[in-house]
Amino acid sequence: MTSETICAPATSPGGAIAIVRVSGPSALAAVDSVVSFRRGSAASAAGFSIRFGVVRDLDEVLVSVFHAPRSYTGEDMAEISCHASPYIVSGILDRLCACGCRLAAAGEFTQRAFLNGKMDLAQAEAVADLISSCTSAQHRVALSQLKGGYSAELAEIRKTLLEFSALLELELDFSEEELEFADRRKLDEILERAIQRCDALADSFRIGNAVRNGVPVAIVGAPNSGKSTLLNALLNDDRAIVSDIPGTTRDTVEETCVIDGILFRFIDTAGIRESGDEIERLGIERARRKAAEAEIVLGLVDLCGESVEEDAERILEMVDLKRQKLVLLGNKVDCGMCNKNVNILNNIVSCIDLQGVSVVSLPVSAKQGIGLDYLRRELVSVSGITSAGDILVTNARHAAALREASSALSAVRAGLSSGLPGDLLTIDLHTALSSLGTITGAISTDEVLGQIFSRFCVGK
Amino acid sequence: MTSETICAPATSPGGAIAIVRVSGPSALAAVDSVVSFRRGSAASAAGFSIRFGVVRDLDEVLVSVFHAPRSYTGEDMAEISCHASPYIVSGILDRLCACGCRLAAAGEFTQRAFLNGKMDLAQAEAVADLISSCTSAQHRVALSQLKGGYSAELAEIRKTLLEFSALLELELDFSEEELEFADRRKLDEILERAIQRCDALADSFRIGNAVRNGVPVAIVGAPNSGKSTLLNALLNDDRAIVSDIPGTTRDTVEETCVIDGILFRFIDTAGIRESGDEIERLGIERARRKAAEAEIVLGLVDLCGESVEEDAERILEMVDLKRQKLVLLGNKVDCGMCNKNVNILNNIVSCIDLQGVSVVSLPVSAKQGIGLDYLRRELVSVSGITSAGDILVTNARHAAALREASSALSAVRAGLSSGLPGDLLTIDLHTALSSLGTITGAISTDEVLGQIFSRFCVGK
Repeated sequence: MTSETICAPATSPGGAIAIVRVSGPSALAAVDSVVSFRRGSAASAAGFSIRFGVVRDLDEVLVSVFHAPRSYTGEDMAEISCHASPYIVSGILDRLCACGCRLAAAGEFTQRAFLNGKMDLAQAEAVADLISSCTSAQHRVALSQLKGGYSAELAEIRKTLLEFSALLELELDFSEEELEFADRRKLDEILERAIQRCDALADSFRIGNAVRNGVPVAIVGAPNSGKSTLLNALLNDDRAIVSDIPGTTRDTVEETCVIDGILFRFIDTAGIRESGDEIERLGIERARRKAAEAEIVLGLVDLCGESVEEDAERILEMVDLKRQKLVLLGNKVDCGMCNKNVNILNNIVSCIDLQGVSVVSLPVSAKQGIGLDYLRRELVSVSGITSAGDILVTNARHAAALREASSALSAVRAGLSSGLPGDLLTIDLHTALSSLGTITGAISTDEVLGQIFSRFCVGK
Repeated sequence: MTSETICAPATSPGGAIAIVRVSGPSALAAVDSVVSFRRGSAASAAGFSIRFGVVRDLDEVLVSVFHAPRSYTGEDMAEISCHASPYIVSGILDRLCACGCRLAAAGEFTQRAFLNGKMDLAQAEAVADLISSCTSAQHRVALSQLKGGYSAELAEIRKTLLEFSALLELELDFSEEELEFADRRKLDEILERAIQRCDALADSFRIGNAVRNGVPVAIVGAPNSGKSTLLNALLNDDRAIVSDIPGTTRDTVEETCVIDGILFRFIDTAGIRESGDEIERLGIERARRKAAEAEIVLGLVDLCGESVEEDAERILEMVDLKRQKLVLLGNKVDCGMCNKNVNILNNIVSCIDLQGVSVVSLPVSAKQGIGLDYLRRELVSVSGITSAGDILVTNARHAAALREASSALSAVRAGLSSGLPGDLLTIDLHTALSSLGTITGAISTDEVLGQIFSRFCVGK
């Protein structure tokens, strides 16, 4: 496969400079056919050096030369830096292809870096995440994964399990002598720890996914409790940031904004009340579903209203406090006649707290902007992202593999305690190991690789 | 001015790699503050070399180092190649600005290259044209200008005039002795040649402008002569090329397509006929105006119609044959009953040819696609672009300066023949020299420079 030399633009159209990347065994020879140098050649240039050259009738270029294995792909590579005209870029690519190169597929440079051992699969996937990162949280997680922190954690779990496996297989070799080399209690402890670590990583996908795609926050409450005013108040201050980040707004997302480097997706819902109107009931049903999908529910209660207790109860009914965070907002605190209602709300929250679940209640005025800074801090805090550490699973494929590994290890553990013979334990253990192996690419198939790298942009 | 160090992204958002450019006296020191290298520093690195480094908590980067004067701007320069995430690019720029750099204005890198004598003004302007070139003709002219062919031509004219000026001033020094050092007839010849060369260059703006902005082609003819069918037929084959070139369609342009590397702007007009209808008359008036602005008029005559002669005459009335090219098309040649009409058309064309103006007549069928290849070749040929050579004025500023120079030289020539004294001739001669000087920037003002470089993109 890597006997082919590939080329592609690594920059997007527009701008002042364009980069054309070339990688493969004949990369430097191809560049020498296309670019004339005053002296010497790309092939004879030192690695990590730059030469000025001319692409005849097309452009004057700078060529950066890299020799295998000291390059991004691990192969001989060149980067041709030219003027960013579509005509020039396609002209250079045409001439490279006439010299035996072919256009690279999406992600093919990174795929080669993986195949040549320059990075593992989790790191390669982090490259794509790093390029598309728009917030500091997205960037931090992608960079940590690229640096290999996550891979090191996985490698440690695998190493422990491989030792475990070796002990079991040793036992198998001497099985006729009915020896037990491995201390079963110690084995059980090893398994328990490995399962815990897999589960913790898999669970971090909830937060990792929120980092990558935005923390879903549903705003719910009775009609006229001030939901849309609150949404506008939260967004207005951040509108500039929102517009700085192209592509963060997805079709199904109502509004996004960045608070303290974390992307939040706010979902405004229909007001909740008993209604005889069929269409309104459908809207309320939809609000309930949206609220059920959210990580955080912002429940609004009108402090000037007559039904604070009833409104708060309706909100509580919608929230699964085991799974979701609830921030209960007493809105319209500026109406000057709400002391009694603030107390009622506080009482409700205290009762919930007694059940061992923590709910935050805040008095705010969406209209006057009172308490919104505090609300923003609270959102950042309950999102759990800042306190989560940098090793987060952001990838559904990885989360699924970790769950598979965990359940296979649980099967091993159950087998161990019920005295199953070692050779049967080994089967499940190998399932767990191969699940973990698919994450970093220690075990990979062409199909999986194709799926992963096709999500990349061309030129990476 | 150039004591400041500037930075800017040189690539557009998106893609796999982004380049951040830094230029100025403390460019390498600023890079060393922002990027940590495993060994050494940017400042200590050799020119035209690349170093791998880390921007803390942000990205791993490659830094290309250039030392003054061997760089694009002629100053110390670095290009930081990072992952193309908007978060990373703005993070690197923020840190550079915190180390004393400031964001570059549009075109400021090229402006510095000009101020440091790396290129003249005409070459600097060619950089912007080269970047935005989308067709081979646009590219060829911009590249030739960047290589300095055009500047060399101007330099030669200036040199001749400077010699001329020196002779005149020598005469002035000895004026009391009433000596005539310069042979007046030889001086007149020099002036005549210089005026011819200025005029030829200024006239090339007509073609140069067509290369840069597209050759305007008006399609005119009686109603139902097949104008829109012809336009569609011409475009359909080239639709893929059209869509390949973003930004070529301007508001006032109906449809553009590229034929043989040349951009044509086709303007479909209302059918021409005598009409009592007020609105239709306005449409026809507009068609006449559009036709008057075109370089090439495609006149369609329906070969199956009853009024071939009359239709052709109406088209001829609209065209200024001294200024415009006419291609007369006998359409619907497939109708099988048009031999007589083809002869009528050929007779009309022969009559015009007798007046010393060349008009092409072609039988075609827009609907069946008959004769369209021949029409395309004819359009390329009558556009005069392929035969025009590479030194074309594409810039209105240059064309105006050349006309100024030409008219000042004509004044010198008139003065010479009417025996004006040398000191009076010198005034007009200096006007001509300074007009020519503004083109290459031998003479420039801050205001002119500001206007020119603000049209550039940031990062160039």
